[in-house]
Amino acid sequence: MSETLAQRFESIRQQTLALAKPLSEADMTIQAADFASPGKWHLAHTTWFFEEFFLKQPGLHPQPIAWPDSEAYRFLFNSYYESIGNRQSQSKRGLITRPGLAEILDYRQAVNESVIDILKRGISPEQTEIIEIGLQHEQQHQELFLTDTLYNLAQNPLLPAYEVSLADSKASIDRQAISKQGNAMVRFEGGLKLIGHDGQGFGFDNEYPRHRVFLEPFQLASALITNEDWIAFIQDGGYENPLLWLSDGWKTVQTEGWKMPLYWQHDDGYRCMSLAGQQPISLKAPVCHISFFEADAFARWAGKRLPTEAEWEVAADGQSSIADGNFAESRIYSPQPTAPADNTLIKQMFGDVWEWTASPYIAYPGFRAKPGAVGEYNGKFMNGQYVLRGGSCATPASHIRPSYRNFFYPHQRWQFSGLRLAENVS
Amino acid sequence: MSETLAQRFESIRQQTLALAKPLSEADMTIQAADFASPGKWHLAHTTWFFEEFFLKQPGLHPQPIAWPDSEAYRFLFNSYYESIGNRQSQSKRGLITRPGLAEILDYRQAVNESVIDILKRGISPEQTEIIEIGLQHEQQHQELFLTDTLYNLAQNPLLPAYEVSLADSKASIDRQAISKQGNAMVRFEGGLKLIGHDGQGFGFDNEYPRHRVFLEPFQLASALITNEDWIAFIQDGGYENPLLWLSDGWKTVQTEGWKMPLYWQHDDGYRCMSLAGQQPISLKAPVCHISFFEADAFARWAGKRLPTEAEWEVAADGQSSIADGNFAESRIYSPQPTAPADNTLIKQMFGDVWEWTASPYIAYPGFRAKPGAVGEYNGKFMNGQYVLRGGSCATPASHIRPSYRNFFYPHQRWQFSGLRLAENVS
Amino acid sequence: MSETLAQRFESIRQQTLALAKPLSEADMTIQAADFASPGKWHLAHTTWFFEEFFLKQPGLHPQPIAWPDSEAYRFLFNSYYESIGNRQSQSKRGLITRPGLAEILDYRQAVNESVIDILKRGISPEQTEIIEIGLQHEQQHQELFLTDTLYNLAQNPLLPAYEVSLADSKASIDRQAISKQGNAMVRFEGGLKLIGHDGQGFGFDNEYPRHRVFLEPFQLASALITNEDWIAFIQDGGYENPLLWLSDGWKTVQTEGWKMPLYWQHDDGYRCMSLAGQQPISLKAPVCHISFFEADAFARWAGKRLPTEAEWEVAADGQSSIADGNFAESRIYSPQPTAPADNTLIKQMFGDVWEWTASPYIAYPGFRAKPGAVGEYNGKFMNGQYVLRGGSCATPASHIRPSYRNFFYPHQRWQFSGLRLAENVS
Amino acid sequence: MSETLAQRFESIRQQTLALAKPLSEADMTIQAADFASPGKWHLAHTTWFFEEFFLKQPGLHPQPIAWPDSEAYRFLFNSYYESIGNRQSQSKRGLITRPGLAEILDYRQAVNESVIDILKRGISPEQTEIIEIGLQHEQQHQELFLTDTLYNLAQNPLLPAYEVSLADSKASIDRQAISKQGNAMVRFEGGLKLIGHDGQGFGFDNEYPRHRVFLEPFQLASALITNEDWIAFIQDGGYENPLLWLSDGWKTVQTEGWKMPLYWQHDDGYRCMSLAGQQPISLKAPVCHISFFEADAFARWAGKRLPTEAEWEVAADGQSSIADGNFAESRIYSPQPTAPADNTLIKQMFGDVWEWTASPYIAYPGFRAKPGAVGEYNGKFMNGQYVLRGGSCATPASHIRPSYRNFFYPHQRWQFSGLRLAENVS
Repeated sequence: MSETLAQRFESIRQQTLALAKPLSEADMTIQAADFASPGKWHLAHTTWFFEEFFLKQPGLHPQPIAWPDSEAYRFLFNSYYESIGNRQSQSKRGLITRPGLAEILDYRQAVNESVIDILKRGISPEQTEIIEIGLQHEQQHQELFLTDTLYNLAQNPLLPAYEVSLADSKASIDRQAISKQGNAMVRFEGGLKLIGHDGQGFGFDNEYPRHRVFLEPFQLASALITNEDWIAFIQDGGYENPLLWLSDGWKTVQTEGWKMPLYWQHDDGYRCMSLAGQQPISLKAPVCHISFFEADAFARWAGKRLPTEAEWEVAADGQSSIADGNFAESRIYSPQPTAPADNTLIKQMFGDVWEWTASPYIAYPGFRAKPGAVGEYNGKFMNGQYVLRGGSCATPASHIRPSYRNFFYPHQRWQFSGLRLAENVS
Repeated sequence: MSETLAQRFESIRQQTLALAKPLSEADMTIQAADFASPGKWHLAHTTWFFEEFFLKQPGLHPQPIAWPDSEAYRFLFNSYYESIGNRQSQSKRGLITRPGLAEILDYRQAVNESVIDILKRGISPEQTEIIEIGLQHEQQHQELFLTDTLYNLAQNPLLPAYEVSLADSKASIDRQAISKQGNAMVRFEGGLKLIGHDGQGFGFDNEYPRHRVFLEPFQLASALITNEDWIAFIQDGGYENPLLWLSDGWKTVQTEGWKMPLYWQHDDGYRCMSLAGQQPISLKAPVCHISFFEADAFARWAGKRLPTEAEWEVAADGQSSIADGNFAESRIYSPQPTAPADNTLIKQMFGDVWEWTASPYIAYPGFRAKPGAVGEYNGKFMNGQYVLRGGSCATPASHIRPSYRNFFYPHQRWQFSGLRLAENVS
Repeated sequence: MSETLAQRFESIRQQTLALAKPLSEADMTIQAADFASPGKWHLAHTTWFFEEFFLKQPGLHPQPIAWPDSEAYRFLFNSYYESIGNRQSQSKRGLITRPGLAEILDYRQAVNESVIDILKRGISPEQTEIIEIGLQHEQQHQELFLTDTLYNLAQNPLLPAYEVSLADSKASIDRQAISKQGNAMVRFEGGLKLIGHDGQGFGFDNEYPRHRVFLEPFQLASALITNEDWIAFIQDGGYENPLLWLSDGWKTVQTEGWKMPLYWQHDDGYRCMSLAGQQPISLKAPVCHISFFEADAFARWAGKRLPTEAEWEVAADGQSSIADGNFAESRIYSPQPTAPADNTLIKQMFGDVWEWTASPYIAYPGFRAKPGAVGEYNGKFMNGQYVLRGGSCATPASHIRPSYRNFFYPHQRWQFSGLRLAENVS
Repeated sequence: MSETLAQRFESIRQQTLALAKPLSEADMTIQAADFASPGKWHLAHTTWFFEEFFLKQPGLHPQPIAWPDSEAYRFLFNSYYESIGNRQSQSKRGLITRPGLAEILDYRQAVNESVIDILKRGISPEQTEIIEIGLQHEQQHQELFLTDTLYNLAQNPLLPAYEVSLADSKASIDRQAISKQGNAMVRFEGGLKLIGHDGQGFGFDNEYPRHRVFLEPFQLASALITNEDWIAFIQDGGYENPLLWLSDGWKTVQTEGWKMPLYWQHDDGYRCMSLAGQQPISLKAPVCHISFFEADAFARWAGKRLPTEAEWEVAADGQSSIADGNFAESRIYSPQPTAPADNTLIKQMFGDVWEWTASPYIAYPGFRAKPGAVGEYNGKFMNGQYVLRGGSCATPASHIRPSYRNFFYPHQRWQFSGLRLAENVS
């Protein structure tokens, strides 16, 4: 069992390095916004996580080799753990040119070796859980590595690609014939339902406890909203009509000057910055890089609403397969159209884009944060954010599950975030 | 029936004027923060509400007399109705010295006369509903008149009283013997429960529809948290320990330098600015002028949690009487201690202080905003705020009901807001 | 002599009150920007100046009656004297509704009586100087009372007049025939010149010492730049051409969105907010409410430059009479056209508008600030500002003199500030 | 002659590259403040300057090879030339990871080759002047390269050295015996003096025209203010006494929390970040990284004043030799103590630290900016800044001259800026 864990460890840690391949050290040093951490920081922070929470435990065998700059790294690469002490300000992660990339790669290597040596000797269930959290954490940062890199590159007026060859893979899928008729409302019966993690396999604390909720009957759209749908919203004045928006959303539209999704530009046609550089909009692909405020306004414009997270989770149960999803493993890194299909079939619940729900991110009844510093992982962020479900084209497939709760603030749009409509049964 | 409505109209409109009595025109002109509107603006805005939404309807009898500056007033005194058009920026309401107070009082008088003349002739049910909304709206602004006045006066280093004589009424109640033992946890059974407005009497759209929710069993504290309790929290380092706080709350503590509730000062003892001027803290009175962030941190410190709004509403059903509450009618305008009482009895659910709940302010399942401009009343604010329940010492008693949902942002503390603890049944 | 001083004291103090006549208490309470102090504050601050610097001296006869709230007033009405201690923040002067206007008028009365009683007994030369500074200070605040009132009223979308009847006096002068040919360049010889106060009569410390400067020959325009001239600048794209502007000026144009002088609006024609309310632009009147940045850009556009303060002072010597100027005593409060006149005659150097010079406001060689708190009057502001000369339509005539140095920051435009061109002799 | 120019061109261009040696690409990519441009940007911008202003002229022989990304580079590497068009925002120069360093070095190489080929064929005097401006410009950016690098590295909590070996060279000089008695006031007679560039060799437009000024007699300190002097100022409460400061300076002290010069830290002793990393303070070395506000406050504390730029230039004439100065060529990059010397001798007027003067940076009488885009070089910055004289330890010796006018805002301190006192002759 710990042998398998060592293999998983090696494979996931290796995958992070693979993401860094197309980038220069400079690309991975800068930070264009507080939320868009440098790539090098992600490489170091995920490593520090294993050092701090696993290797620093007493009594490990063999004794891990101490990293000489451990004290400084704890300051530089702690993200937000108050229990662990002072740290580099989040907004200034992009000013750290030293240690350089080579040193960070050495650090990764050293920590990996120590961890693997220990895993090979066998560890306790509690220690296994820490390794597991560390790997889930690493996968979260793999997605952030991509979304933050996209944001940072997008600030360059030259709009450079993360990887030029991505454009070809995307084009090959676009050529499929896609019909719009794929979107229909599918009915679900309500009643007392169980949601939350069922205890099989790993889950974050915020997915627990599994608990009962009462749902009225509802309908959920079989398909995601597409770029074509979104252009209709734009052209109907969606960004100019305050009555479609939440009050805070309308303020954001005005102060930020929003007229279309993040990364879009419009001259003779709509184009969009992506990890393949700037590309024409693919009309049948799911719309992406929209905020909760935009998703909510779109739903109001369409005479519908966003689903709650409970509705989403109930609907996802058995309807859609993670295996079919467009996840990070496909290395396309942009949401893709689906093939035409039976209207009554819910499509693309997993992968492509995170789906905004109507649910504020709060504790499930009976929620308990983990004790110790790891308890700062999820609970303290339960304010002002909304739940997203289903994973995206930048999420590792092995990281997602139906009960998975992602969360972002309602104005944020640099994630691969889209929407699916719902409505009441009248 | 419309006769009775005319009387209610006159009485509530008159009550607003009574609140303005102790203040000078200058007191009612300034605005110390975006959220703390001038008293004169409240007098004008509530009047404009009746003019805009009632008197401007076609076909009223008798025909209302047109206010000569109606066009300008629509700009100056529209609060946030996008459907009605451009308006004075909220942050600049304190720059409007003209029209002066005398003109605003004339405006109130003129609108009152027109409305009463029409009410006496009899109106339709739809028109009755508009009048009713206008009166409920007026009562909300009566409370805001007091809380905004307190805020505005509190910026003056002389800490002047709104009404000096208030101090005496307060003192007389403080002299009662109060025992701390009044606070105990009272158990409520869960199950499928109905919450929301039952349709008897007036309710805002956000209280509808009445609907089923599933609750686990829970316990609710019989008493509100007192100033004495809060001082224990302060003295135990509550404001210095990040692990007690939500992440956004801790940021606010640091950027705002919070060390105690709003309006408190500490030198040899704790003192608090109030509508009676600065006063010593009354230890047994409910703590007040705290934010959601503070309420939440206190609950975590106490090893408990805040109740959800559904729990609160279920518990309020039949447990506590609005008639006993310390509301605006008592003209004390500060929260008061309760007499000692049976521990198992839930006390002070109505009046004294609004109680923060753990529930984000969102739509009930099946919620529909009213059509037209009045539909901008509640629904568009359903983001980032938390529900408060029960009314305060500044709320008119006739304005409150068990299903009433008040809402403010988690960092706001200028309302009379306090807390009551809850916990799971283990 | 001290008898005459008592009469001057009474007359100047009375003049301040006369300025307050057309305003309500609310008008004099608000503050629309940090720099635009409330009228009531001006009334109180100028009084406090006499209390603090004159009445609080030991050994006066008769002993002045102590003002009961003297301690609080020292906090509320100290402007910027660090030696005197803590004070109300400048940006929050508009939040002080209490003491009310009546109390401030009582305060003025009480201080006036004490000062006059003492003046009638006779005072020392040092004491006389303090009274004199206090009166000059009062006159400066008379001008600020008007400019700040204009600014504060101009934030009201109704654009109310300070005094409606002012519009008529203005119109009567506009009817004069004015010819544009009045503006010509007049030559002055350079050489070693003396500038600064000559010691006859009162002068501020910053006008001393009189000293030698070397000037090259120069030419100065006989007339001020008019609104008509300014419209030509606007229409030639003056506000859109960065090459005309200092770098800091161009940034200000962009961040502030400047397109015309402060208080101007343009729809079918140019209109301007004034103390008479909004009025059509008078084409032949001097342009006003422009910043140094705008004056400097205009001069560059015109192929000329602004005069230095030394050039201005040398030219003013004997060329123009203060007696003819449009000062506050004329009670027009807006700059006026001049009658056609001999081109070679320098016109309007005194009154109408303060003239921006090219000279940064710095110390004259050998400058010494006065000892004590009064030394904070002028010297500590010698950074980043520019000198203006000649007084305006809001300046008392008895307050101005050729050596008088006014100073404001280059972006400020709420004073009655205009310009006159100069050029080198080639 | 043009052969010699080619050699100078090569040598100065090469010197810039030498400065980049100790840094990684990441070090040269980041930008920690608007004013602290990335090293890579300096390398590119100075090259673009030659491309834009020299190579893009028509009719050059041989025809320069066009740089393929010329259009993009014009956008990315134009600093502030409005005539040349839109450009990358100054505050976002640190987000440009592509083009990478290798590409920028290729660009430098390509432009160098084209320029040298042309220089070898011979050019016109007008073209020579452009080359000369380009080289002077390059030298200015050599200094900025060092000061910006220091600032950027200083934001890293590890305080890394630009070049570790610098610490040794510094230490070796510190060991010299230095006596404090070196500072005395030296008298200069006043009168009508000529200042400004005399036309021999290169000068910037702002040094012209040479012109007469009248000076009263004055005294100038023979030595610069040292770190030891500055510690006395700190320990005497210099940073806590508002009466020592200009009003704008005192505001800056409070908002920035200044307690000592930039880069200083105090625990058991004073230490200072430098290009050699953090080092102990050298007591006898000139104080450095102080603002004008601090220099001015120090002078007031010392009962003296700062010299005017005219006084400085008159004193520098023949008193001090540029050849002896501690300039960039010595590769120490920090100000050094001088050996004990005759009190009556003015020391260190050139090199070590730029000396703040009391003179606002304005146009000399008769100043004319150059026509065309190069005219945006100096004139448009003539607002709100102060003149500094003499060059620093980061200035190339061949770049400085007695008439050289450097200028910065009074709050800026990231240059190697210090002070020398002056006083009036009583």
